[in-house]
Amino acid sequence: MSGFVSFVGAGPGDPELLTVRAVGRLKTADAVLYDDLSSGPILAHARPGADLVAVGKRAGRPSPKQAHVSRLLVDYAAAGARVVRLKSGDPTIFGRLEEEIVALRAAGIAFEIVPGVSSASAAAAAASIPLTRRLTARRLQFVTGHDTAGALPDDLNFAALADPAATTVVFMPKRSFPALAARLVAEGLSPDTPALLAEDVSLAGERLIRTTVGALAAALAAGRSGAPALIVYGPLACG
Amino acid sequence: MSGFVSFVGAGPGDPELLTVRAVGRLKTADAVLYDDLSSGPILAHARPGADLVAVGKRAGRPSPKQAHVSRLLVDYAAAGARVVRLKSGDPTIFGRLEEEIVALRAAGIAFEIVPGVSSASAAAAAASIPLTRRLTARRLQFVTGHDTAGALPDDLNFAALADPAATTVVFMPKRSFPALAARLVAEGLSPDTPALLAEDVSLAGERLIRTTVGALAAALAAGRSGAPALIVYGPLACG
Repeated sequence: MSGFVSFVGAGPGDPELLTVRAVGRLKTADAVLYDDLSSGPILAHARPGADLVAVGKRAGRPSPKQAHVSRLLVDYAAAGARVVRLKSGDPTIFGRLEEEIVALRAAGIAFEIVPGVSSASAAAAAASIPLTRRLTARRLQFVTGHDTAGALPDDLNFAALADPAATTVVFMPKRSFPALAARLVAEGLSPDTPALLAEDVSLAGERLIRTTVGALAAALAAGRSGAPALIVYGPLACG
Repeated sequence: MSGFVSFVGAGPGDPELLTVRAVGRLKTADAVLYDDLSSGPILAHARPGADLVAVGKRAGRPSPKQAHVSRLLVDYAAAGARVVRLKSGDPTIFGRLEEEIVALRAAGIAFEIVPGVSSASAAAAAASIPLTRRLTARRLQFVTGHDTAGALPDDLNFAALADPAATTVVFMPKRSFPALAARLVAEGLSPDTPALLAEDVSLAGERLIRTTVGALAAALAAGRSGAPALIVYGPLACG
């Protein structure tokens, strides 16, 4: 009897932003592999006796290699387990999903993907700022702020990212936003472009700061902000 | 006693893809304003006696004007009602949210936004195609395929949309995709770029077709496909 893997979007963190299906999959899972130490209230949906396995990079511990996570998934499923692989936000967006799917396919293990609420949508909702506007922001783009080494990727489409008629969401901007902002301004984006810094969206420590691209880059370069979770910039509506 | 408006993301259509909070808001609402005649199983969460008000453009009827929807929201809330304004997918993405927020603010009515699962995420999940890839698709962009008159907007950033290193999701592409594809190819995008046509995602009539930008444009121009709900193109992984 072979097992089954459900890739499940955990949403931004608040357990009320789980989908009904995500809650159902958690309740019936034999094993839950999760990324994030802050998943406490979400993991409370798992049945007593389920294996809860942290595979994320938090709390100063070294990150398990991606290959190790894939092996765990395969091993649990091959032993017949119903496995939930929790991914924060929506698993199809910057979730490193492809590597794990490839491993499951190679091992002949069936899987499904349960979509979730993206942290970008949750940040916009919390700030009351729509991500699109009818005439002024008809394009919405998501990008990561760092490569595997933590630096700004050099091959991003900076012209597309500097388009003043798009809303842009930068995921995991970490320390690289000042470098990104410099490239955007060089491409012609005004440093006065509205920006939103969103940390710990939907959680108790939620922080939403309206600022501008230039001011945010300066603050982050000076170390005056912690590592932000998400940055949104563009022709933002009043929040 | 003043009312309250919850803008609630209904997700792609399957009621299991509602969030826990969305279900809760539906259960306690005095009035639910919704866009779409296909919302039956979702509306079943509303309490008996709640007003269920269709305000969408379906079934050949003329669409109520946006100003009329805003007035309904204000009138219900001013009368003390707890109002749910259901929006398909995620309300912050192509949800015409801003116009309704402006009307509520002008009337001094409090509101919240409950984010939902985007139909883009749901389509990607159903097709097992991640919307981002670690090295080859580091940028993800959403765009609408038509303006208020139903034509391809002329002021889109076609260079950004023709980037072969991005995944692009076209919402409501309707009849305008052949015109968009022609512009993309003129900007240098290969007509052999992989594409996914997704209709009625998460519902009984779900249709997912793997094709290419060129073949899809030809099929839509020849009228061989119905009006598609969503088109995804770019360096898509194997689904």
